Amino acid sequence: MIEITFPDGNSKKYKKGITAVEIAEQISPRLAKEVLAATVNGEPYDLNREITADGSIVLHKWEDDMGKHAFWHSSAHLMAGALEALYPGIKFGIGPAIENGFYYDVDPGEDRIITDSDLPAIENKMKEMASQNLTYSRKQISKKEAMELFSKKGDEYKTELIGELEDGTISLYTQGEFTDLCRGPHLLSTEPIKAIKLTSVAGAYWRGDEKRKMLTRIYGISFPKQKLLDEYLLFLEEAKRRDHRRIGKELELFTFSPNVGMGLPLWLPKGAAIRQTLIDFLTSILKKKGYKIVTTPHIGNVSLYKTSGHFEKYGKDSFQPISTPQEGEQFMLKPMNCPHHCEIYNATPHSYKDLPIKMAEFGTVYRYEQSGELHGLTRVRSFTQDDAHIYCRPDQLQEEFMSIVDDVLLIFRSLDFKEFSAQISLRDPENKEKYIGSEENWEKAEKAIVEAANKKGLQTTVELGEAAFYGPKLDFMVRDAIGRKWQLGTIQVDYNLPERFDLTYNGSDNQKHRPIMIHRAIFGSLERFVAVMIENNAGKFPLWLSPEKAVILPISEKFHDYSNNVLQILNNSDICTLIDERSEKIGKKIRDNELKRIPYLLIVGEKEAESGTVSVRKQGEGDKGTMKVEEFIDFIRSEMKKEIAY
Amino acid sequence: MIEITFPDGNSKKYKKGITAVEIAEQISPRLAKEVLAATVNGEPYDLNREITADGSIVLHKWEDDMGKHAFWHSSAHLMAGALEALYPGIKFGIGPAIENGFYYDVDPGEDRIITDSDLPAIENKMKEMASQNLTYSRKQISKKEAMELFSKKGDEYKTELIGELEDGTISLYTQGEFTDLCRGPHLLSTEPIKAIKLTSVAGAYWRGDEKRKMLTRIYGISFPKQKLLDEYLLFLEEAKRRDHRRIGKELELFTFSPNVGMGLPLWLPKGAAIRQTLIDFLTSILKKKGYKIVTTPHIGNVSLYKTSGHFEKYGKDSFQPISTPQEGEQFMLKPMNCPHHCEIYNATPHSYKDLPIKMAEFGTVYRYEQSGELHGLTRVRSFTQDDAHIYCRPDQLQEEFMSIVDDVLLIFRSLDFKEFSAQISLRDPENKEKYIGSEENWEKAEKAIVEAANKKGLQTTVELGEAAFYGPKLDFMVRDAIGRKWQLGTIQVDYNLPERFDLTYNGSDNQKHRPIMIHRAIFGSLERFVAVMIENNAGKFPLWLSPEKAVILPISEKFHDYSNNVLQILNNSDICTLIDERSEKIGKKIRDNELKRIPYLLIVGEKEAESGTVSVRKQGEGDKGTMKVEEFIDFIRSEMKKEIAY
Repeated sequence: MIEITFPDGNSKKYKKGITAVEIAEQISPRLAKEVLAATVNGEPYDLNREITADGSIVLHKWEDDMGKHAFWHSSAHLMAGALEALYPGIKFGIGPAIENGFYYDVDPGEDRIITDSDLPAIENKMKEMASQNLTYSRKQISKKEAMELFSKKGDEYKTELIGELEDGTISLYTQGEFTDLCRGPHLLSTEPIKAIKLTSVAGAYWRGDEKRKMLTRIYGISFPKQKLLDEYLLFLEEAKRRDHRRIGKELELFTFSPNVGMGLPLWLPKGAAIRQTLIDFLTSILKKKGYKIVTTPHIGNVSLYKTSGHFEKYGKDSFQPISTPQEGEQFMLKPMNCPHHCEIYNATPHSYKDLPIKMAEFGTVYRYEQSGELHGLTRVRSFTQDDAHIYCRPDQLQEEFMSIVDDVLLIFRSLDFKEFSAQISLRDPENKEKYIGSEENWEKAEKAIVEAANKKGLQTTVELGEAAFYGPKLDFMVRDAIGRKWQLGTIQVDYNLPERFDLTYNGSDNQKHRPIMIHRAIFGSLERFVAVMIENNAGKFPLWLSPEKAVILPISEKFHDYSNNVLQILNNSDICTLIDERSEKIGKKIRDNELKRIPYLLIVGEKEAESGTVSVRKQGEGDKGTMKVEEFIDFIRSEMKKEIAY
Repeated sequence: MIEITFPDGNSKKYKKGITAVEIAEQISPRLAKEVLAATVNGEPYDLNREITADGSIVLHKWEDDMGKHAFWHSSAHLMAGALEALYPGIKFGIGPAIENGFYYDVDPGEDRIITDSDLPAIENKMKEMASQNLTYSRKQISKKEAMELFSKKGDEYKTELIGELEDGTISLYTQGEFTDLCRGPHLLSTEPIKAIKLTSVAGAYWRGDEKRKMLTRIYGISFPKQKLLDEYLLFLEEAKRRDHRRIGKELELFTFSPNVGMGLPLWLPKGAAIRQTLIDFLTSILKKKGYKIVTTPHIGNVSLYKTSGHFEKYGKDSFQPISTPQEGEQFMLKPMNCPHHCEIYNATPHSYKDLPIKMAEFGTVYRYEQSGELHGLTRVRSFTQDDAHIYCRPDQLQEEFMSIVDDVLLIFRSLDFKEFSAQISLRDPENKEKYIGSEENWEKAEKAIVEAANKKGLQTTVELGEAAFYGPKLDFMVRDAIGRKWQLGTIQVDYNLPERFDLTYNGSDNQKHRPIMIHRAIFGSLERFVAVMIENNAGKFPLWLSPEKAVILPISEKFHDYSNNVLQILNNSDICTLIDERSEKIGKKIRDNELKRIPYLLIVGEKEAESGTVSVRKQGEGDKGTMKVEEFIDFIRSEMKKEIAY
């Protein structure tokens, strides 16, 4: 008998050689139907692989990532089987599961190409095969056998991969006629694969090397129920509708120009207004919380980055240094603000009584991302961090950490992000030598973070080994309106830069001491955050963030004078307002302006002009009644106040 | 007889060979005493040089720059004479008049050095010589004679200079024993030089070439009256007291760090607050005047600057291009914002009805100034322009120009700069081929500027040939509290960039037309403007610009709680307030805090704590009575409103 321990800590004895699916079956037949993969003693395990020793087990269903991973990986094999049936002689590169679905890189052969129009036929073949309920069977073979098998098949990609594997670790998986080199694990059979969608075809260099052959990458996704696929396709549609790149263009929020450079956003007036409103919002909180705002240049001498250690890190893959007429002098675009802030810290002496010093900057930084990785505002080469650094004494660390968590929660609440999660990243306890800073300080800091998170009632996951080499950290992810997760806030303890910049304060003992530095950003970057806001609300911004609050629609030209008076009053009251003076019927004006997502439409005709009023319509909601202009100003101001609690 | 025309247009006949001083004498003996130099037919003329043909004359007194120039140039010769008497064998480089005074570069010889402590003796020798009433006499000589004379004297600097002169153009001036190679003009004699001060000694490479010999540069200044020198020395003291570098350090407004780089300001919290208040002030005006604020990155692809023409202009003397991992890709730090703005203009199509488009940005730009030219915040390598570009139709040019003049005047008025002057820079009518743009457009634009300035009642000087190659311009200078002039606003018409960027709009004729672009900045740069504000008010900022508005002074520790309540109320009301909780006597607290230039001191003791009040003192003015905290908030807000009319 062997003893198997479950995630809840309970354990049970089973006969030696039992499989994961048999264990599931003993728990409930329903579980046996739903389980897709297992982890035994931390190792991925086929459901029908015999378990021969004591150990822990986790059974993975669709709802968890490991379950999906096995499902999609098996689907990739299924697609490969269909391709081999349809394109005899086709050769295979790699075919992994990915975040949403799977792909396979294939070489159809000299004279064949596979395009989007071929996908339905491949999809049908997959469905046909899946319904045959083919089992995935595993076989361990020697390197020599593997090499012979794929050489015979003429698949030079697989033989190249086999050449790099160690003998004794090589396994094959077969379903139906198709056999693939694979470590597994896989489903028991194709039976659970009920719904399949091949989504696109792209080119991909073999092993990502642009000097090697371009293979054909076919992307797909699959589900255990048709309903899940339907929902996923709807989600894709919805995500497309919310794509910040499309909406940003449509609403004229930002643009890119090849003449300026890829990934370098040009903020158009409306986007710049949103960005500034976010800065003002954060600034009001910073001021109340005792942060001091500084402003630093966008370059620094390389000596600054040699001191900070960034010079070594940002090497050949980065923006290169800037030479000057003075020999030997070189500057770098700043990849972060912290070195500049450390120089400011060092510009004046500090007493223990002055700490914490909370230094904030909306600092624009420059990082060279590969052109293929650029994506709208979420992956750019220039972005503005809502950056702050807290310099504090060790005894202040926990309190400061809690104070920052408060800031993050306040801001999430103000912005109506109700669902978020937090991850604490600590040292790898097995490899403590990888980290800078004393054992004592690390223990203190890790304890401070965990306690601060607990005291603030945060639900957190703790990841060992995910800390930065210079300190532990806490990251926040928010969930948007259609369930996508976005990483936003981060709080990081840093023992490294205070050493490198020789930061000190005078203690009560009149000795020099080293402060601790905390890096923190709540939005991360304004660019990314604006993208999240656009995708979260599909471009329909809350009133306070809307770059234009209202548009005046005169019923006819007779009321243009009055309308322009109202326009001026509103704009002078800092309520950014437009006017639609086209000679169109009022119905059309209303329809057109509804589409522009301007929160309020103010209709002005004879009655309004005589009584000094406007007829107020809310975008998407309709009539809100007639108000005096001053009343409308009070109304819109109180609506904005309701939205954010700052 | 010859006919001489005066600046007022009147003319008079004189005998041929009359001199300027004789003409002055005929006008009035007083004028003859006061005149220092003359310009005849546009050429500088010694007062005793014979005038032999019809022509125009201007007589220069101390009050005008040409008068001062001759005075100081003659003083430089006087100093050289004194040096030759005191240091026989001393050799001379060049000795010009400068903006304030004069200098001479000298080589005292191998074993002699001249330091600040030697200046009184030299000054005394000069005074002794001046009182001898030595005449400055001019002599024209051949190149050969000149060469012989200075070779014999052993002065290799002068012979080097003579070697580069054309024969027939060489003249000498002699006063007393001392003869110098010089073009003139000079005073008639040393008699007017009544007051002399030698100010400093510095090293200066011969001909500014660091590979050549380091000479000794002696600076001095002289005046026709002792009173003027006394005033000047007072002015120097006052300027030193107001030096923004000293005050910036003392008040912790900004700093520099060699690790970041020379000329790259780090704005400390209080300086950053002043800078932001100025941005907010300008922004509120921009919004009311229909400007749209955009935000652009601090770099651009070199192709952007090849299009704009800046790439050629900013060559070896500038920050060098930034390479990237992608071969052939290069970026540049932006030296100005206009190319980015033109890309934004081109991002969307424009109709004649959309114009003018007024695009503004507080854009930080980077320009490599030589390290020797850097000076505090007034000459830096990174600065933030209050930049705007107006894209308009030709028929809108004059109106837009007037509107910008309105903005400039509004802002000068709000900032209490009552004295300012304006200069219109037009084409050189003799060299029209130097300028880009059609004759018709230039005529229109020059007319538009001149008329706009007239209509706005500006007192302007018009300078021919001072226009940029791309268009005419209007510059504003303000005069500060101690009479110094600072160049601030500039408005420039540009026909060049619209061509280079192929900017167009759709006219009412449905054809493509070229807009005109106007560049305008009011402060020029925030850095420079903060420096001007500091020097203008000696660091005592007006209330609205003060980074800290008030400081609370509790009479004893008993009132710390109440004081902290008041502190929080004020800070939450956006009135940045400090607290002085030191256990010092209230008298000392008041004295110490007066020195920090915080506008209001709020004294809090038993009476105040009981009645919810503060005792208000204004910095430098004393008691303002007791107020409820809310009253004080209203009071300080209304005081700020009084200061600026925006």
